[in-house]
Formats: sequence, structure tokens, C-alpha cells
Amino acid sequence: MLYIGIDLGGTGIKAGVVDEKGVILAKDSCPTLPERGYEAVIRDMANLAIGVAEKSGHGMGEIKAIGIGLPGIMDPRSGRVPFCTNLSWHDVPIIQEMAKYTDVPVFVDNDATVAGLAESVAGVSAGCENSVFVTLGTGVGGGVVLGGKVFSGSHGVATEIGHMITVVDGEMCTCGNRGCWERYASATALIREGRKLCAEKPETALLKAVDGDPAAITAKHVIDLAKEGDPDCAAIFDRYAYHLCVGLVNLINLYDPEVIVLGGGVSHAGQFLLDAVRAKLPDMVFYKAMPYARVELAKLTNDAGIIGAAMLGR
Amino acid sequence: MLYIGIDLGGTGIKAGVVDEKGVILAKDSCPTLPERGYEAVIRDMANLAIGVAEKSGHGMGEIKAIGIGLPGIMDPRSGRVPFCTNLSWHDVPIIQEMAKYTDVPVFVDNDATVAGLAESVAGVSAGCENSVFVTLGTGVGGGVVLGGKVFSGSHGVATEIGHMITVVDGEMCTCGNRGCWERYASATALIREGRKLCAEKPETALLKAVDGDPAAITAKHVIDLAKEGDPDCAAIFDRYAYHLCVGLVNLINLYDPEVIVLGGGVSHAGQFLLDAVRAKLPDMVFYKAMPYARVELAKLTNDAGIIGAAMLGR
Repeated sequence: MLYIGIDLGGTGIKAGVVDEKGVILAKDSCPTLPERGYEAVIRDMANLAIGVAEKSGHGMGEIKAIGIGLPGIMDPRSGRVPFCTNLSWHDVPIIQEMAKYTDVPVFVDNDATVAGLAESVAGVSAGCENSVFVTLGTGVGGGVVLGGKVFSGSHGVATEIGHMITVVDGEMCTCGNRGCWERYASATALIREGRKLCAEKPETALLKAVDGDPAAITAKHVIDLAKEGDPDCAAIFDRYAYHLCVGLVNLINLYDPEVIVLGGGVSHAGQFLLDAVRAKLPDMVFYKAMPYARVELAKLTNDAGIIGAAMLGR
Repeated sequence: MLYIGIDLGGTGIKAGVVDEKGVILAKDSCPTLPERGYEAVIRDMANLAIGVAEKSGHGMGEIKAIGIGLPGIMDPRSGRVPFCTNLSWHDVPIIQEMAKYTDVPVFVDNDATVAGLAESVAGVSAGCENSVFVTLGTGVGGGVVLGGKVFSGSHGVATEIGHMITVVDGEMCTCGNRGCWERYASATALIREGRKLCAEKPETALLKAVDGDPAAITAKHVIDLAKEGDPDCAAIFDRYAYHLCVGLVNLINLYDPEVIVLGGGVSHAGQFLLDAVRAKLPDMVFYKAMPYARVELAKLTNDAGIIGAAMLGR
């Protein structure tokens, strides 16, 4: 069986023909240009899918399903996308629009969910019944696989793990609540704390690393200095790792998965991040004598969106 | 098909013969007397089960399975109970012990999980695919039903929802972490805040209600005064409801169930509690335009343990 996976982002659309095991047979991409409106974007997605099927030498007749991962959610009752902020989409009838161009069944889900599914089929959580994928990027996203299937809850709004409140009355979040986990466990949190540090301590190494311009601070600056042993950035990173572990412990206490997979920008800190998490987590889990989820780094990177989207239709 | 459900508590053991729909046909009980050791307690459980089967007029030959709900967890790999604090059990081979007395298959799960299962079969969440049961008692326990089945995670340690951290660096918890939800959403939290109030404001109505003895404060005292409009207790209750909603929003963002069922002592506040939760929750959910879990009060009370335990074997 063959599937097409489409990774729809704010900048580009990527599509690929993928086999049952998550192997990409052919792929292609085009720019999104969301300002043209959803009809043009969806037409381009459909054409990209048809083109990539031809490129693979199989044609649409052999494609069992098309899956789409996007930075939003789909309402499973209506087949519409209620919102997709990066694309300025509101209530877009994605299933209906795709049906104008192809009669292959179309499945849609959140991009983090799709990346988690990819890892559970062809990545670090392959073969696991239950896994949670955590993207540590500008925000914190999540993809939950339970019983080998994507878990989206009863209304399609589950697994918004970044908006789990871990700090009552804490930092204001874009969602309107205070103290969401993503305010403390995202790349944005490292940047915010880095800027605070520079404001409080102008002689700190971090400010030198960005030539005195706090606006230029990235998560990587903070992580790299922490790795090099700079005490100020090491303290920020240590507190970051604690906040990260608070959310991971909550995921363990609620989902008890076999594996938690860390992806997204901050996960490029690699073994340094893993070591920090693995040092703190054992003291924080509830059942200290029982086995619990192992924490791993994502394995699939750029292709996770295509592979996972394709697997939606499997 | 008939099942036996056993509700094993620190004080008493209750057992009942239950049909496929969760109706109790016969029941009986005996004291636990845990100080005798687990062998004696398990022997009494088995005898109670055999006795109640006879009492129902059916006999053990017609019983398909025995389910046991207890204040702890079972390790699904070993069939042993690693700990069960109220009974001072450590690593008890419960399945093996029960097999000395009966060859009917035995299933074991956490008491809150079992109560949640009971509600999803014969209570307020009956017929729901996905539901979360929350016990607001001395601590906060949880029972999660996903896809119509008890969800226990990969290692049997899931749904420890009371130990989800919602207040980083908050109140010390019995589990060793700080800021667990149950420190803020349990009856214990209402008592703690009531005592604080009395220490800070000796003229408060709450201190009068307990004849000047803060040690006598119960959650009910605080709730009853809040209901009567006492401003001090109303403020405590309002803050309590906010903390409760923080955890409920987290449950919605992670599990997205159809129903969240509130049980346990604090749920006896009834409509007053529901009104407070329903007033706050709509502003706190992430997808404000999408449907989300309705919050209801538990319907089954004393018999939930028997019914839910019986349903473990269904």
C-alpha cells in the first residue's frame, strides 16, 4: 500500500509518496504563499500530491490515502479547519476543497501529532504502543500515540500539552491563561531568561556573545554557553531543564507512555539536554520503584512531517 | 454474564455480584483488619466473593471474572501490588494468592480508576467513549476511560492526575515534589486554607463555626460558610475552584474527554461546586470556539467500587 503525506507549513508545502513502513519513495515541494487564500493553497497541495505520485512511478490509482499535517487542528465532525494561525485560516473546508481535485480519501491532523506518529512508525519510538512526542520550539507542541494510533480526544482538541498550566499565576501565555508549560519549556523561554540576565548583569558572557544586542539572543546562544560552562547560562539552562521535567513528569503521571520523544529546535542541544533531563527525572516520578517512560531525542527531522502525514491514512 | 466486584479499603471489604449492565444482584461486606497481613485479608476477600456468589443464587461456576479495586496500583507484568499505603502492602502477589481459593480470573486496578469505570458503565458518563473521573478527597485521584476501556498506561502508573504539578515550587506534597494539583484541589487544601484564615483573622465566621478550634475545621465547614455568603470562606472557595479548574483545563488539554466526573468528599458541595467550575472553565479552555468536556457530578456513590471492580473483567 502507498500513501501520500503532505507537510503544510507557513512557508512551504512538502509532499511525498510513502510506503507502509514509512519509507519515502519520492518527494517534492513548493512555496505556500498563504496570502493568496486557502483555495489556491489547497489547489497547490493537490497538484503537488498528483505530481509526486507520478514522480514515484505509481500514479494516484495506487495511492490509498492522502494525509495532511498542518499547524492547527481539524474538527473531526465537520472536516473543516477551525483555525490555523500561521496561514490565517479560519473555518476552512479542507476535505471538501481537496475533493475537487482527487477522490483519494484525505486525513488531516496537527503537525506535532503527525511528527509523533512518524517517530512511532519509523523513528525512535518505532514499535511502541504508547508514546508522546514533544516539540520544543517557539512554543511546545505535542503528538500522542496511544495503542499505536494517533490520539486526538473526543473533540479533536487533545494533546495541547504546551498549554498545560504548570505555574499558576505565572507568565502570560498567548492562549489567555497564565503559566502554561510552553512559557517555560520552549526556545522562547530560554530567550526571555537570556534577555533578563543581560538586563540584570551587563558583564555576562551572553551579552558579549551577541555583541551587546539582547534582541539577537537565540536559544542556541544560551545552550552553547551553558555547554561551555558559563555559570549564568548554566543556571538558566538548569532552571529550564527543571521546568521541562515538571511537564514531562505530568505527561508520565497522565499518559504513562513507553517513550517520550523530544523534538523541535531545543532538542538540537542533543545529549546535553538528555543528560539534564535524565539527571532530574528519577527523583520526580511518582512511583520511584516502577519502570516509567524513557526520554529520547527525535530521530526523523525534516521528513517527519511527510512520513507522519502519510501514516494518518494507514 | 456475571462478575464479582470487590472494593478493598483500609477499613472494610465490600463485594457484590454484578451483571453485564452494572446492576448489583447481591452484596456483602466484612472488616479488612489489615494488621493481620495480606494472606488473611486476601483469604477473606476470596471467601466473601464465594459467599456473595452463593447469596446471589448463582454460585462461582457462573462468575466470569473477579475484579478488585484497591487504594494502590498493580504491576501488570508481575500480577503483584508494589504498594498499597493504607494496607501497608508492599509487593503483594495478589493474583497468586487469590488463585489459592478460586480459579476464576482476577483483575486488579486502582480504586479511583475503578470508580471511573463504574460511572462510565452505569453512572453519569455511561455510554461515553472517553471520560475522566476525579475524586476530590483527602488527595485527588483519577480514573481515565479511553475508548470505553480503563486506561492504565504502559507501566500501570498512568492517571496519577493528583500528582500533576500545577504550581511549580508550591506546597510540599507527600510524593516528594512541590505544587502537585492535589495540594490545591483536595479537601485537605480547603482545610489548610481555612486554618490559615483563622490564624490571620481570629474574628472570622469559620473560627466561630468550630468553637474556636482550628483543628476541627473540615472542608464542609468552609464550603457551607461559602454557600451562606461568608466573604472569607467565599474567597477561599473561589481560589479553590480556580485551582480545581487549572487541573481540569489540563485534563481537557491532554485527554479531551467527553465528560469529566467529579466525585469524592468535596463533590458533595453539589451544584455550588459545579456552578463555580462552569463559570470559570469557558475562559480557560484553549479552543474557545470548539466543544469540550462537560463537567458533571458523580452519580454512583457507595456502590461505585463494587460495580467498577466487577466491570474490570468485562
